[in-house]
Amino acid sequence: MEFLTAITSDVALRIIASFPLAERQTVEVPLEAAPDRVLAADIIAAEDIPPFSRSLVDGYAVKVKDTYGARESTPALLVPAGEVRVGEATEKRMGEGEAVYVATGAMLPEAADGVVMQEYVRRSADDLEVTRSLRRGENICFAGEDVRAGQVVLERGKGLTPFDIGVLAALGITRVSVYRQPEIGLISSGDEVVPVEEAPPPGKIRDINTHTVSSLLMDKGCMVRFAGIARDAVRDVRDKLSMVRESDMILLSGGSSKGQMDFVTTAIEALGGTVLFHGLNIKPGKPTIFANLWGKPVFGLPGHPVSCAMVVLRFVLPLVRRLKGETREERSHAVRGRLATNVPSSYGIEEYVRVTIERAEDLVVVTPIFAKSSVISMLSRADGYFIVPEGKEGLEAGEEVEVFFFA
Amino acid sequence: MEFLTAITSDVALRIIASFPLAERQTVEVPLEAAPDRVLAADIIAAEDIPPFSRSLVDGYAVKVKDTYGARESTPALLVPAGEVRVGEATEKRMGEGEAVYVATGAMLPEAADGVVMQEYVRRSADDLEVTRSLRRGENICFAGEDVRAGQVVLERGKGLTPFDIGVLAALGITRVSVYRQPEIGLISSGDEVVPVEEAPPPGKIRDINTHTVSSLLMDKGCMVRFAGIARDAVRDVRDKLSMVRESDMILLSGGSSKGQMDFVTTAIEALGGTVLFHGLNIKPGKPTIFANLWGKPVFGLPGHPVSCAMVVLRFVLPLVRRLKGETREERSHAVRGRLATNVPSSYGIEEYVRVTIERAEDLVVVTPIFAKSSVISMLSRADGYFIVPEGKEGLEAGEEVEVFFFA
Repeated sequence: MEFLTAITSDVALRIIASFPLAERQTVEVPLEAAPDRVLAADIIAAEDIPPFSRSLVDGYAVKVKDTYGARESTPALLVPAGEVRVGEATEKRMGEGEAVYVATGAMLPEAADGVVMQEYVRRSADDLEVTRSLRRGENICFAGEDVRAGQVVLERGKGLTPFDIGVLAALGITRVSVYRQPEIGLISSGDEVVPVEEAPPPGKIRDINTHTVSSLLMDKGCMVRFAGIARDAVRDVRDKLSMVRESDMILLSGGSSKGQMDFVTTAIEALGGTVLFHGLNIKPGKPTIFANLWGKPVFGLPGHPVSCAMVVLRFVLPLVRRLKGETREERSHAVRGRLATNVPSSYGIEEYVRVTIERAEDLVVVTPIFAKSSVISMLSRADGYFIVPEGKEGLEAGEEVEVFFFA
Repeated sequence: MEFLTAITSDVALRIIASFPLAERQTVEVPLEAAPDRVLAADIIAAEDIPPFSRSLVDGYAVKVKDTYGARESTPALLVPAGEVRVGEATEKRMGEGEAVYVATGAMLPEAADGVVMQEYVRRSADDLEVTRSLRRGENICFAGEDVRAGQVVLERGKGLTPFDIGVLAALGITRVSVYRQPEIGLISSGDEVVPVEEAPPPGKIRDINTHTVSSLLMDKGCMVRFAGIARDAVRDVRDKLSMVRESDMILLSGGSSKGQMDFVTTAIEALGGTVLFHGLNIKPGKPTIFANLWGKPVFGLPGHPVSCAMVVLRFVLPLVRRLKGETREERSHAVRGRLATNVPSSYGIEEYVRVTIERAEDLVVVTPIFAKSSVISMLSRADGYFIVPEGKEGLEAGEEVEVFFFA
């Protein structure tokens, strides 16, 4: 057999997860550039949000005890005591039995502890009739109710969402310390591969993996440095690896034949690197290499485009998260659905089955797309994939599977 | 009541979906810039992919009929007839009983219709012993098996995934015709709102919505033009609207009080626009305006940050998809999970409940986060939301709900 040392995906993921990474560098970016970046330091609120108690509705600020027992038939009578305009500061302090008009967002007078909505207030001569009683705090956002000064609002290692950006804006934080984007060195290889802008002569094909892989990486916030296409020669692979030596990680795609893979492992070892695994019990994606070179992680990815993409999704992206400095576990967006057809698979091999997903009422129907691992067009038609575990020998139509979305 | 004309979300979504949009402009981008852009024309393959039949394994190209009945004890005897190297063209035509060595990816000699893996071949003196019989096509990717010349491989209106980029690369397409990115005019409003870089004096708060909304829009591939913060005055709102007149859509955030909303509708009408709806039976998000101004869609978004964000997610983003030229229905990434607690809600109002999502074995646990609609920090802690339909008066712990992820 070709890969005597092939290991399971579990072992591979553990080896990848324990790869020692260099400390991440940080950089300060303006708020507009912060979405999707990863926080390099906890964000501690320097002030209360909101900074003052605000009305959540158009109505009258009151002391709620003045409304106790009020109802349509026996309204509470309050004395109108002016208005606070939206955006205006007030130093007013509520007196007993008073009601101050406040529109949504207006600052509340001191000692106001409820706002009665306009529709529950009637004007009668000099009085205001309040036709229902209020709970304390009703229709108010109190000072510090959103964020308290001194509180850790966002933690180091968090990828910033649009809502996190909102929190930073609320606090007046216009520059944010984030981790530098990982820079990934990308190499294509193979005597049969020509750049996409060249017409391939007979026997050769265009470089697909560089484009697929760099799209996948850039989508995850990486910068990609492409070193070009290495010929199937130790010398050339070495040269290309050296070109991207400064990257945080190196991915070399191509090399599914025994000979091509030997060039890759030989070149890595010749440069002083250590191959950590070579060959995985997965399908597609078996001819995968993982190595430590110059203290950096290096993947040798299979040449078939589908195999290459699946290995990136399952094995490379978790390491990308670590390189980005993300400390939280990834949110799983997997859905459970029922298989439309039987799925054959081999015992002892973890298989990745590409599928389409259709929703019909409460049912999620998962239909496998069967195609060879060189067929990229099928991947572009698929919605996601599921994993047939090593211990399974096929699945049956109607069985429930957990599907991971491609995008 | 404040909004006599409040409509249901269904009606609102229909009005939004039927808004007549101007024809989308197209632009040509290089392949590297094509991910996430939307195709403006069908992609028709000009050639077969792969352009020639290739081996999927390291082994020997054969005529499969020469292997019929072969097994370990009674191998088929074949004559070694050279090798095709990876990347090399061959004009060889297989003869009867011949076997040609091919590594993975190598071009196959004409008339070869199967490749036997190396491990099923023994060398004996001058012969090759093949120890199993092959199916036709085994371990071959035939010319045109991935893509056939003349085939529509990707359709107009498709947002390009990394795998689509791979398909384009395979076809040697280095420039792609895509729709221009929508340009969204963004206005903040409110006398209480100051820019994020200013320290708000008492009674005022920083502009949150501009930052949240522009992150949400840029994440979806929009360009955002910010016109600044309009004061609560028809004149100022008019001026700001005119500043972003050339945009494909205008979003004006802020304005939850009756007075503020009146400025917005008055300004739109004064400029010759038509308010299509004003007030939604939803919570949060009730004070939402949708209008046609200069033939462009205009949203007046509620001022409370959570309300504003929810309205963008549920009502604005579907229109963003249309503006981008996406013709496919959006893939739903919703998951079904069980409520950890009871959820009160009001009959007749569609409510959006922010939640955290935890996975435990096969169970997805959905825990509501109860907070006022002004509290942005809670949104940054939530994983997603679910919808309580109008016809429901609360849900009970243990009930199943469909949760939409925020990111």
